[in-house]
Amino acid sequence: MTTIAFLGLGIMGSPMAVHLAEAGHTVAGYNRTPDKTAPLVAAGGRAATSVADAVHGADVVAIMVPDSPDVRAVLTDPGGVLDSAAPGTLVTDFSSIRPDVTVELAGLAREQGLRYLDAPVSGGEAGAKAATLSIMVGGDGADVASARPLLETLGRTVVHVGPSGSGQTVKAANQLVVAGNIALLAEALLFLEAHGVDTTAALEVLGGGLAGSAVLVQKGEKMRTRSFDPGFRIALHHKDLGIVVDAARAAGVVTPVAALVAQLMASAVAAGDGGLDHSALLRTLERLSGR
Amino acid sequence: MTTIAFLGLGIMGSPMAVHLAEAGHTVAGYNRTPDKTAPLVAAGGRAATSVADAVHGADVVAIMVPDSPDVRAVLTDPGGVLDSAAPGTLVTDFSSIRPDVTVELAGLAREQGLRYLDAPVSGGEAGAKAATLSIMVGGDGADVASARPLLETLGRTVVHVGPSGSGQTVKAANQLVVAGNIALLAEALLFLEAHGVDTTAALEVLGGGLAGSAVLVQKGEKMRTRSFDPGFRIALHHKDLGIVVDAARAAGVVTPVAALVAQLMASAVAAGDGGLDHSALLRTLERLSGR
Amino acid sequence: MTTIAFLGLGIMGSPMAVHLAEAGHTVAGYNRTPDKTAPLVAAGGRAATSVADAVHGADVVAIMVPDSPDVRAVLTDPGGVLDSAAPGTLVTDFSSIRPDVTVELAGLAREQGLRYLDAPVSGGEAGAKAATLSIMVGGDGADVASARPLLETLGRTVVHVGPSGSGQTVKAANQLVVAGNIALLAEALLFLEAHGVDTTAALEVLGGGLAGSAVLVQKGEKMRTRSFDPGFRIALHHKDLGIVVDAARAAGVVTPVAALVAQLMASAVAAGDGGLDHSALLRTLERLSGR
Amino acid sequence: MTTIAFLGLGIMGSPMAVHLAEAGHTVAGYNRTPDKTAPLVAAGGRAATSVADAVHGADVVAIMVPDSPDVRAVLTDPGGVLDSAAPGTLVTDFSSIRPDVTVELAGLAREQGLRYLDAPVSGGEAGAKAATLSIMVGGDGADVASARPLLETLGRTVVHVGPSGSGQTVKAANQLVVAGNIALLAEALLFLEAHGVDTTAALEVLGGGLAGSAVLVQKGEKMRTRSFDPGFRIALHHKDLGIVVDAARAAGVVTPVAALVAQLMASAVAAGDGGLDHSALLRTLERLSGR
Repeated sequence: MTTIAFLGLGIMGSPMAVHLAEAGHTVAGYNRTPDKTAPLVAAGGRAATSVADAVHGADVVAIMVPDSPDVRAVLTDPGGVLDSAAPGTLVTDFSSIRPDVTVELAGLAREQGLRYLDAPVSGGEAGAKAATLSIMVGGDGADVASARPLLETLGRTVVHVGPSGSGQTVKAANQLVVAGNIALLAEALLFLEAHGVDTTAALEVLGGGLAGSAVLVQKGEKMRTRSFDPGFRIALHHKDLGIVVDAARAAGVVTPVAALVAQLMASAVAAGDGGLDHSALLRTLERLSGR
Repeated sequence: MTTIAFLGLGIMGSPMAVHLAEAGHTVAGYNRTPDKTAPLVAAGGRAATSVADAVHGADVVAIMVPDSPDVRAVLTDPGGVLDSAAPGTLVTDFSSIRPDVTVELAGLAREQGLRYLDAPVSGGEAGAKAATLSIMVGGDGADVASARPLLETLGRTVVHVGPSGSGQTVKAANQLVVAGNIALLAEALLFLEAHGVDTTAALEVLGGGLAGSAVLVQKGEKMRTRSFDPGFRIALHHKDLGIVVDAARAAGVVTPVAALVAQLMASAVAAGDGGLDHSALLRTLERLSGR
Repeated sequence: MTTIAFLGLGIMGSPMAVHLAEAGHTVAGYNRTPDKTAPLVAAGGRAATSVADAVHGADVVAIMVPDSPDVRAVLTDPGGVLDSAAPGTLVTDFSSIRPDVTVELAGLAREQGLRYLDAPVSGGEAGAKAATLSIMVGGDGADVASARPLLETLGRTVVHVGPSGSGQTVKAANQLVVAGNIALLAEALLFLEAHGVDTTAALEVLGGGLAGSAVLVQKGEKMRTRSFDPGFRIALHHKDLGIVVDAARAAGVVTPVAALVAQLMASAVAAGDGGLDHSALLRTLERLSGR
Repeated sequence: MTTIAFLGLGIMGSPMAVHLAEAGHTVAGYNRTPDKTAPLVAAGGRAATSVADAVHGADVVAIMVPDSPDVRAVLTDPGGVLDSAAPGTLVTDFSSIRPDVTVELAGLAREQGLRYLDAPVSGGEAGAKAATLSIMVGGDGADVASARPLLETLGRTVVHVGPSGSGQTVKAANQLVVAGNIALLAEALLFLEAHGVDTTAALEVLGGGLAGSAVLVQKGEKMRTRSFDPGFRIALHHKDLGIVVDAARAAGVVTPVAALVAQLMASAVAAGDGGLDHSALLRTLERLSGR
């Protein structure tokens, strides 16, 4: 069994830490708002009082925080992971952040003798709770191999996609495809509604052919009935599309469809829909059509 | 058993007519280029010498031709279906054409005492051969019910989606989603390649989560390896996106993503890729990125 | 002096007919709603009771109606121009319509022994009143030469741009550029407002450099102060962008920016802004930004 | 007369420094590649050996370098302006950089007791040589007033648009409009060419109406004849559009047309056209149309 520091116990991190504790590992969890530690404690884990307290004695440091500056702070702030972790510790960042920041932070970690994986996940709150996440892992093969048992406690699909930063790159690509598929399904649904088609039947037949997708299966009925409780919030998907557009630009890849979808997602945030499920991107397209 | 005239024996129509003949129906097939009748004849059907010859004595007239003007000609030309079919004949148009033209032609057919269904299909040549097409049917419920046994000979998913034209509307929505999903996957793949990620592993993990889609399953590897033999040709998808954009405009639905994807597909045609599989839309995005 | 039938006395046609009458020509004007003839009569013209009545005895037939079907009706309806005009009559269509329809109608006119010019105008109601229109003329050089004195009575810039239909093509290009320039100025203005910049000063400096344009001069202050009384209505510009997108597609020209701007203009119509000046496209972009 | 340090003597900075020297000011110029100082020396200026050497004794420090990191380095590197300039010195940054970086650097300068203006320019090499630049100035009103005589030595339009950063914001808006106008003119021109219209005549008539613009006047003929020697290089405009898209996103302004044009400009860079004049964006649209 492994001694694990889990930093960040939000909607995603909390059930992930719980799964690790329930699997018999020694888990010390830390969250800025301390009341989030209750589920972990109930599962046999420990509520740490600081990053340093959690990291002390850990073999593995897991991180699950919202954005690039948060990961940077957890690692580089005084008393942070770089200050506190023993050489050889395996840092695994599950957050979805900028690939270039990951590459930089992985370098800093290695200078301190730490090992570093980026392991962003897909599958949302439901996947975190059910331990069915898809996990896209960037880093050294040996580190991935040693982390795999833990990762498979949390997800169904664990794939090593390349060196440090690659996990973040694949996650960015994932968010590009998902946001775009939502936008397309929204346009299609409004198109069908405007023509008076039976949309239940239409979604069934679309799902049976080449237009079928996980977005259609998981979000189609939510969109048809305008049930937009999150799920994965628009504000976070907006953040992710910022990463996509910047990383594409930096790599010299032209992605006009992603750029347009990013504008639509920004419009959803501007309209105050940031707290809704990302399938509520439908509402932006509805507004565009004056509906 | 039913007496069927099958008009249009191309890549899609030929295997469909063969399935009907093999199911025991009496099928007379007609094609402008007569050598296309060979598979039908081998399956026990008859090669008709004209539309009128095929239609004479038929209970059902099946049509599978490329575009709106072709369906119009088959129906309204001298000696066409409207001239030749007996009252009560069930005309079933499998072609993918403009919804407004379908509504108009269905009206003309009804004035002649004919019954009329629009029944465009999804699933491509492979689906036609395997009789696993998705068929989206517009028309009167009673007519759909009487056609259902024949339609289920040809497809796995047969859904009545609304009155005349609704099948075409759903097919248009299908083509919108499919083209968009291809464009997004192309952008994602080029993004991953530019960052040096292992794309085989990346497609696996994308496919396991919310980014998963039939396009990813059926086209992902073709795109990764640039294997663009059709399949469904870009030229046809370009035609379909013209229908989508026009029908959306007519209905007052704003579809910016579809409009942009339609421009990319037009670019693929302009670049001479019209004869390739629609997954070759990747090449347009590759050119945009100077690759 | 010339005997002129002027068909269509709306916002544009009325002042144009008045200018011709004031220049000493014999002008018979016809409009479906007959009260629109008053200004022409006050200027010494005659109120005709039908197209045929106006056309009878005319050397020149001028047409200024809203859309392609209207021009077609004026020409081809029973008692229309093709029925009523004497051989050799010079038909000059000032309307902005589809280039392909113009080519077709010009052919029909020539079959009747008529001469035909397409002469769409730019400059709007103000240009019509001030006789400062830009007129883009398609047709035979000899016909353009004979029409030039009349055209220069109406506009400041009269340019022969090619054979029949070319005037419409150039007008379509004009509408593409104008709509796009409005959209860009709208985005720039909202960008400046969001950053708290002094927009009066900013528009001054933008206007002094490479960002300067007629749109900025004529529409910038209207947009800054949200004064959207027409002017040229959004509904008409929406019609024109439909022509642009279709004609580009037909010609195999890929115009992604025009296609996107056409979607924004369609959104303006869908939102109920069709009756406002086209500079009110700003409102669509404002809505996108949740303002 | 004023003692001026001019840092950055490239295509733009060199003629600007020369104008200041010719106007009788004492100008010390510094450039990383020292041979660029020749024109300034010929005009009576002095070639400084370092930033510190140039800044020593200067009342005004002018900066004209390519991008945000360059301005940062000039100011904050050891021996840079912040280290070398006497309290009260007026720093005037003519570079086009990120507004947020300007705000940050202006704050650092004020902490050192320096005064700071952002004064990006529009008008290109030609405007720099002819001293007809448009200069958009952000900063305190008193500082703008004291700098105005120098600024009017360099440009024809000098406008104070708001507090620190506002000049950069207006410049970003300028670049948005200019790039978009180029893209639209490119689409219009290809549209006209594809229809066989006389493009010389067409550009004349477009220029006479609401489609007229400085881009059409200055770039229309270059685009018509494919004469793309710079002028203002695509690589720089690409940089500027990155600023625009980021700043719009940060301000919560949705700019879909700008985002699309930014993708097209990125495509021009990816295709290797970065060294051509920005009007060569036409080539990207040409490639899209397979021409």
